[in-house]
Parts: sequence; C-alpha cells; structure tokens
Amino acid sequence: MIPQQYREMLSHKSVIRQISEYGAARAAEVGAENVFDYSLGNPSVPAPAAFTAEMQRLLAEAEPVALHGYSPSLGIPAVREAVAESLARRFGLPYEARHIFMTSGAAGAIAHALRAVCEPGDEVVTFAPCFPEYGPYVAGAGLRLRYAASRADLQPDLESLAALLGPKTAAVLINTPNNPTGAVYSAGSLAGLAEVLRAESARRGRPIYLISDEPYREIDFTGTAPYVASFYKDTLTCYSFSKSLSLPGERIGYLAVRPGCEGEEVLADICGQISRGTGHNCPPSIIQLAVAKVLERTADLTVYRTNMGLMYAELTALGFDCQKPGGTFYIFPRALEPDAVAFCERAKRYDLLLVPSDSFGCKGYFRMALCTDTDKVRRSLPALRALAESYR
Amino acid sequence: MIPQQYREMLSHKSVIRQISEYGAARAAEVGAENVFDYSLGNPSVPAPAAFTAEMQRLLAEAEPVALHGYSPSLGIPAVREAVAESLARRFGLPYEARHIFMTSGAAGAIAHALRAVCEPGDEVVTFAPCFPEYGPYVAGAGLRLRYAASRADLQPDLESLAALLGPKTAAVLINTPNNPTGAVYSAGSLAGLAEVLRAESARRGRPIYLISDEPYREIDFTGTAPYVASFYKDTLTCYSFSKSLSLPGERIGYLAVRPGCEGEEVLADICGQISRGTGHNCPPSIIQLAVAKVLERTADLTVYRTNMGLMYAELTALGFDCQKPGGTFYIFPRALEPDAVAFCERAKRYDLLLVPSDSFGCKGYFRMALCTDTDKVRRSLPALRALAESYR
Repeated sequence: MIPQQYREMLSHKSVIRQISEYGAARAAEVGAENVFDYSLGNPSVPAPAAFTAEMQRLLAEAEPVALHGYSPSLGIPAVREAVAESLARRFGLPYEARHIFMTSGAAGAIAHALRAVCEPGDEVVTFAPCFPEYGPYVAGAGLRLRYAASRADLQPDLESLAALLGPKTAAVLINTPNNPTGAVYSAGSLAGLAEVLRAESARRGRPIYLISDEPYREIDFTGTAPYVASFYKDTLTCYSFSKSLSLPGERIGYLAVRPGCEGEEVLADICGQISRGTGHNCPPSIIQLAVAKVLERTADLTVYRTNMGLMYAELTALGFDCQKPGGTFYIFPRALEPDAVAFCERAKRYDLLLVPSDSFGCKGYFRMALCTDTDKVRRSLPALRALAESYR
Repeated sequence: MIPQQYREMLSHKSVIRQISEYGAARAAEVGAENVFDYSLGNPSVPAPAAFTAEMQRLLAEAEPVALHGYSPSLGIPAVREAVAESLARRFGLPYEARHIFMTSGAAGAIAHALRAVCEPGDEVVTFAPCFPEYGPYVAGAGLRLRYAASRADLQPDLESLAALLGPKTAAVLINTPNNPTGAVYSAGSLAGLAEVLRAESARRGRPIYLISDEPYREIDFTGTAPYVASFYKDTLTCYSFSKSLSLPGERIGYLAVRPGCEGEEVLADICGQISRGTGHNCPPSIIQLAVAKVLERTADLTVYRTNMGLMYAELTALGFDCQKPGGTFYIFPRALEPDAVAFCERAKRYDLLLVPSDSFGCKGYFRMALCTDTDKVRRSLPALRALAESYR
C-alpha cells in the first residue's frame, strides 16, 4: 500500500547527506579536526544575541496562553505587518501585511508558491546548476521541472530560458545569491530575464510567475545584490531566516507577494488554503514573534566572506577554473577531471569532502560549503594543494 | 493561473472561524465579558512552567549553532528516542526511535500518514460527526473522504463502516477522545473496529491502515481511555502537544508507527521523503528539544472537566438531549429545533456562540468548546436558560 513514488525516493537519498554522513564516520576515526567537511550548507555562526534576548523576554513576560496560542493560518498579523514594513522600506515597493504569508522557511514558501500559481501538469523552469531539492519540491506539487542553462560566468542564460518557455510553463524559479554557485544575478541579468518573461506572458495573455528563492539575500559580498521583485511585477519572493539569523532548525520564513502582482488580492489567502491540505499550518508562534523584532539584524556573517576570499585565492593559485562568488557560503570550481564524482572521490583520500556538481544538475564541477571556522579553512589548504598536485 | 480548487476553497471558509470573528466583533461592541463564545477549540490554560523553564534553560545554556541547527528530517534523534521510550512505557508496545516521525502538530502527522499509506484516488473512511479539517486534509492528498455514521451513544457504528469498505479503501481515520462529540471510544468499540478492519484486510490480502488522530489523548475524564494502537497492528498514531501542553501555536507533534505494522521498516523514512515535496521539513529544533523534556507533563487540564460537569448538568436540567463527554473540551447536544444553523443563529440573540453540527458532517446538533474560565461558563448559564425558554 506504500506508494512506489516514495519507495523509489528512499533509494535516491541526498548525495550531500551521504557525504556528510561519511564525514561524521571519518571524524570518529581520525578526529573531527582532521576532516575538512565542505559538504553541508549549515550556518556556522551563532544566532544574534538580540534574537535570544527576545525569545527570553517573550518567555519571561508574555502571557503563555497568548504567546503559545494558535497563529492565524496566514501568520500573526503584527508579524506580517512588520515584515511588510521592512520590505517596503528596504526595497521601495509598497508591501502591506496582506502580501505576506509566514512559512516554515524558504522550503515552505516555495511549496506554497508552486501550488498557488501552477496547476498539476504545468512546467516550472529553473537554471542549472541548482539546489537539488528543487526536484522534489516541484515533483511534490505535481509539476515538471525543466532546466535552463547558466552561462560560463554563472549568470542565467536567457536564450536557453526562452527556448524552454511554452504553453505549459507556469513559473520560473530562480535563486540569487545562488546555491551552489555563489553567483549574484546582476541587474542586467534580472532586467533581461524580466523582459523574456513579459514578452512570453504578453504573447499568451497570462503571466508566467517568477518565484524567487532568497535565503542567501543577506550574504551578499557585493553589497549591491539587486532585489528581484523590483524587476518583474509577477514575483513571489520566498525568504528564509535560516542563514541571515543562523536559525535553520527553527523553520521560519515568508512568502511575499509583489504589490501589483496578478492575483495579489487573493494569493496570500490562497496560500492559507493550500496549508489546509499539506498540514503546514504556519510556523511556530514564539519564533514568529521573536523574529519580527530582529528582522533586519543578522548573525555575524563576515566569516563567510573571509573564508571565500581565502579559498578563492588558493583555488585560483592552484589553477582551478573558478568564478569568484558574489555571496552565499558556497564556491563552485571546475573539477580537475571531467568526472566530478571521481574527482570528489579522490579528494576523500585527503579528507577533503566536496560535493560533485552532478546532483546540482550539471557535470564537471564541485561545490564547497565554506561554513566552518576560518582556521579550519586555512588548515585544509595543504590538503587541497596535495589533491591538485596529484593531477600534475 | 491560480488553481480554481483553491479559489473555491476561499469561498468556503471555516464556519467556526466566521462565528469566532463575529464573537470578536460583538465583544468590541458589548464587552468581551458579555459574549459567551464557545466556538473555537483553543486551550485556555497556560503551558506548564516546566516547559517554559526548559525553553529558558536551552536559550541560556545550549550552544546556539547546535540549538538552532537543522534537525534531521525525521526529527532530532534524542527527541524521537524520548517519545518512543515514553510511549513504550505508557502503553506497553515496543516503540523505538525508528517508529517516530516528528511533525508540525497532528495536522502535519495526518498529512504525512495519508500520503504514506494511500495512493491518489484511494478512499479514506471516517466517522461523522468529525473535525471539519479532515475534508481538506484528505482532499489535499488527492484522496476521497467517506463518512461512516456514529451510533446514538456517539460510539463508531461498525456496520456503517463495514458497508463503506471496498477495494479503494486505503485507511480509516478516527479521533478519540473525539472532536466534536467529546466521546471516548470504548475498548469494545475499538476491538470491534479492529475486527472489521482485519477481516476486510484479510479478504483482500493487504492491510487497511488505521490512522488515529489523538490530540485530546490527555484530556480523558474517564481515566481509562484505551490506547488505539493496542487494538490493531497497522495503526499510525497522530499526536499533538497542542492540548496536553497548551502549545497550539508552536506546532509540535509526532506520527508513531505501531511496532509490527505492515511497512514498519520504511514508514518513518517514507514520511521524511513526503516532507521534501510538501515543504514541511520537521518542527522547530528548540520546540522539539523542550517538549522532549516534558513529554508526560500536562497543563492543568482540570478546568475542562469542571466546565464540562457544569455545562452537562445545566443542559440535561434544561431538557437537552446530550451524551456526557468522556474527554476533550467539547460537548455536543442536540439542538432544540431540527435546523441547527437556525438554532445557533437564535442563540446569538443571547450572545451565546455555538457551532452548528452541519460543518462536522451531521445535522441537528451543536458543538460547544468549553475552553474558557469556569466563572464565565457559570455566567453563561442564564443565557442558555433563556435560549431554552424561548423554545417552550
């Protein structure tokens, strides 16, 4: 009676998680300090003290029945209001509380966005390489994921996108700053992308929605990462506080419907209806309330830039073909042999745990998640050198 | 592009919520103390101090990166272990951590249970009257909900159930102690139910699963409410701490796969795969950790019994046809006219807010949610008397 679909998924478990499990086992053998595990994208810096203080204040001062009571299914009104006000002030778009739907992280936001603007059988286009979970997210909503290419500079390839748009395309799903590449989409790329979508939407007389997955928005080394929804009216922004506040386990984020978006008057409400069928029922009350007080704070994210600078310098010095990341805590160099799986397997000999690009939807590269302390990054450089040396 | 299915749901919003919104508006007019709002089933007693203390201890002492880090998708291992150990000790079944999947309340647990053991197009049978959200839960999983009858004493009508079982039946969904009736299914009822399911499962050579929704397990006035999974091997228990710990907004519960259940070796893992497609990704880490330390505590639940006693005595004195609830904070009397909607509409004249049984899938009754302070219950009795009087 157990659906075959899920049984099959069990035999295709996450490659990243497998590598990370190998890392844990290896650490038990040789000591954690000797294993350079760059597999998992798990924030390595503590949540800001202001978040902890707000949680403590709520527990000490708030009336428990109200504090832990049901949140309305769209989120606590004061929290939606605070998120809208912050977005409006930061990005100059007239967001109101009615545009905001509180979610369990970006994963929850994307799950709702896909169901809100696509009918089962529709297609969603993303750019490869991409976050591997886009596969199950899209399949889980009964949709088909198609992969446009990225250019050599890791910006979206708009010709490749245009070629994939068709009558079944309901949405385009993008991620900037990007996991796995670290690329920040430029204003030029986003303006071009919007133009392609507007042209195709006009041609067929109904909009293609842009679903913008932005958990890395605050890890922006350029300081000028454009706000995606500014470029295209029919944008659903999916945000998570997992990285900005180092709270990945607390599952808190939001979906923001762009003011003026087609369907803006119903989209947040529709998300509330979708929740009824998926068992989502909005994120925890206390976490919503605490996050609302620290919306524009971040953990100390500077370590990610320091780590990236060190690793980028070493990789390029060793002759790796590598774009300099504009944000995130990832870097995405080309492997030293065409088979990235074989390359990452060889890296294990040096206790360097790298993720081959195959699971991100392209071949020949690898991803490093640089969320560890800088001293460990430094100590990993000789291993990286030895690995490169082995290819000479 | 917005699916019609959800647009239609928008025009069928929850009747309970509408009554509760009317109550809030009316309270603003005449004062909250004068509106006897029995519509919403929202716990009215504070969470136990031990829960708050454990949250505070975690925030003060735990290392923040670990505390707020990603939980594995099946739940934090130590939490799953603690839940299994508690269930095993309390109910004498050999639960292990591998049988437990941590969820966002009972809603999340039911959403996963339905997807884990049913294929789209299958049928699920429940007993009317029932929690209205079973409709969207089941429809959201692509399944069809069918309603067996309850007997006059509010126990499950097994003949009605047997008549509905067929080749498409994948699961039976029950709720004891029951919302909206307050009934506690007896050991006799559960043994009979199990026999019907075993006979039908044997006849067709594959199991019908029993999905047992148990958010009210700890609000048991009888002190002898049977543990459902003891009666039937292929049971998935869906639990929520919303009522036992008065934490409805914190969205924490679990799904427990009965040891020995068909598919026990994969069912929790399957739930982890289902999460990938629905954006669920397990409940917040800090709430999991805190709840694990107070698994067998409860809020002070005695008020619900006191309120029930008062209201039951008054209702029967006034001549209402009413079964005495065995648990929950609900009571479910017969309305004083055949049209329960008209009856509840008339009750509004006395600022008594009652929910007609129509939205629970049967006609002619009404539900009162007695989660308020006892003084207010007392003060509402004259209004109830006046309402009854108006029918003389």
